[in-house]
Amino acid sequence: MDEFGFIDSIKQEAYMQPSLIRGIGDDGAVFSSEAGKSFVTCIDTFVEGVHFSKETMQPFHVGYRALAANISDLAAMGAEPAFYLVSIVIPQSWEMKELSAIYAGMKELAKKYQMDLIGGDTVSGESLILSITVIGRADKGKARYRSDASVGDVVFVTGTLGDSQAGLHILTNQGEYRNSNYFIDRHRMPEPRIPFALGLKGLSRIALNDISDGVASETNEIAEASNVTIALNDEEIPISSDFVQFPKQLQHQWKYFGGEDFELLGTVREQDWEEVKRIAEKTNTRVSKIGRVTGGYKGHVLLKIDNKEERLEKKGYNHLSR
Amino acid sequence: MDEFGFIDSIKQEAYMQPSLIRGIGDDGAVFSSEAGKSFVTCIDTFVEGVHFSKETMQPFHVGYRALAANISDLAAMGAEPAFYLVSIVIPQSWEMKELSAIYAGMKELAKKYQMDLIGGDTVSGESLILSITVIGRADKGKARYRSDASVGDVVFVTGTLGDSQAGLHILTNQGEYRNSNYFIDRHRMPEPRIPFALGLKGLSRIALNDISDGVASETNEIAEASNVTIALNDEEIPISSDFVQFPKQLQHQWKYFGGEDFELLGTVREQDWEEVKRIAEKTNTRVSKIGRVTGGYKGHVLLKIDNKEERLEKKGYNHLSR
Repeated sequence: MDEFGFIDSIKQEAYMQPSLIRGIGDDGAVFSSEAGKSFVTCIDTFVEGVHFSKETMQPFHVGYRALAANISDLAAMGAEPAFYLVSIVIPQSWEMKELSAIYAGMKELAKKYQMDLIGGDTVSGESLILSITVIGRADKGKARYRSDASVGDVVFVTGTLGDSQAGLHILTNQGEYRNSNYFIDRHRMPEPRIPFALGLKGLSRIALNDISDGVASETNEIAEASNVTIALNDEEIPISSDFVQFPKQLQHQWKYFGGEDFELLGTVREQDWEEVKRIAEKTNTRVSKIGRVTGGYKGHVLLKIDNKEERLEKKGYNHLSR
Repeated sequence: MDEFGFIDSIKQEAYMQPSLIRGIGDDGAVFSSEAGKSFVTCIDTFVEGVHFSKETMQPFHVGYRALAANISDLAAMGAEPAFYLVSIVIPQSWEMKELSAIYAGMKELAKKYQMDLIGGDTVSGESLILSITVIGRADKGKARYRSDASVGDVVFVTGTLGDSQAGLHILTNQGEYRNSNYFIDRHRMPEPRIPFALGLKGLSRIALNDISDGVASETNEIAEASNVTIALNDEEIPISSDFVQFPKQLQHQWKYFGGEDFELLGTVREQDWEEVKRIAEKTNTRVSKIGRVTGGYKGHVLLKIDNKEERLEKKGYNHLSR
């Protein structure tokens, strides 16, 4: 199969977004403006050997997870997914049927959110690399920023933290584990929190971020962007019931610095917290209060742990460090 | 410099697009809908060793040319450039100052078209790879497609063909050449035909494509998408004055199959041809009639050369062939 044949094979049969005017097949895709809406866009890249490996993921998961990470960014912006474009660098070592499985993984998730694949590029190279651009829409004035936290806010997080890294640990360390499929699924097929994020639309103010690098990194991002202190309480960080089977030191590492859980981290006014809980229940989303926004140090995160309060540093992934 | 420092260093000081609500710095960028406009988007990827090499390009050119190729796609859609997002995969072998030069090359071109850099990702990997997504806008109903050619149309092309490959030849083959800087510039810093493409706005119908893989490939794309025959005349294919210094066989190869000239190829009604010439003059663009759209074989391109008419096959680049 050559480039043209491959592109034909991944083309969607039919498009789902009514605002799409022209999909794949020309020099660019065309979609219309929509009154009262803004568009949200971001790009994310996944490199074999850096972000994923064939030893812990099947090709289907590689695609699923890469698109999930991008959709999670849209969730963190309060945006509804609409379109995606995929550039793929293909090495000799990947078979056509594996490449098709990558696209099948993306398509499965895309279908869930009515997203259309509207562009792409396929080139050859030394390692498999996926670059995905997503485009979503938000009601005008309702895109959600990290810079909107205020002193007194409740800090909350969806789901449970550290599960993705626990899954990776299970996949790379032989042993007996309880509930291993749960953790492996959380690693391979994370669920972006779109319904919950869209449910928050009615709130007048909310700071929102998604947990891709670890909650330590993302709380720091909100604290810095909003120029506030965030005070977390270790006892309130939500973990799944079988998470306690892992050594304490690993639990701590994965919860705060593990990343890739693709949960949402937010801050809202005290009086909006009940509404957030109601939206969480309605969208079948676990949500936990994990701390407070306070004054004091600008751009710091403090963690209360073992009856001490210490500074929680960023220390998340930083792929460019070398 | 780490990822965060590098991203800070490439961030724009100020944004130029009035519709931009939020640029780099959150999970995604936000821009507003615009009444009466459609958005056009595409993604393109450039791999070191496949699409460029340090031996023939300085880092500045790598960035300039990669963005030019993307902007050329917007031109071919009749769209005005607005935003771009850049994902970069960085190997150990590239210095920070070279990476900065890549971004400087993109910025130089972006500034010319008032484009804002609104997103990106930086990751490490084995070879340098740039993935660029561009977003532009077109008046509603005025995006230009390959599928809009009709029997009787004049086929035209901007500029001169084959220059980019001639420049690459000069860079990779020692020798005495006339006007070598001209050809090298055409290879390293191609000029997308935005002013001319936007000037065509008033035309009710036009088929448009940009020459990235070679005019043989792109005429075939229009012929297939529009289900027509395109008949070209070799004598009318525009070449620059010093192009004749190269062996005849190379001239032929570069003109038809060389690609990367980023000129525009179009077809318009006979009665609109004068208007196209007027717009070309106004935007300081050379434009040449090179053939006709005819009936007959659907999706074929015929070339009249040396008093014979033969079929011109696609045979352009096809990066996935292996």
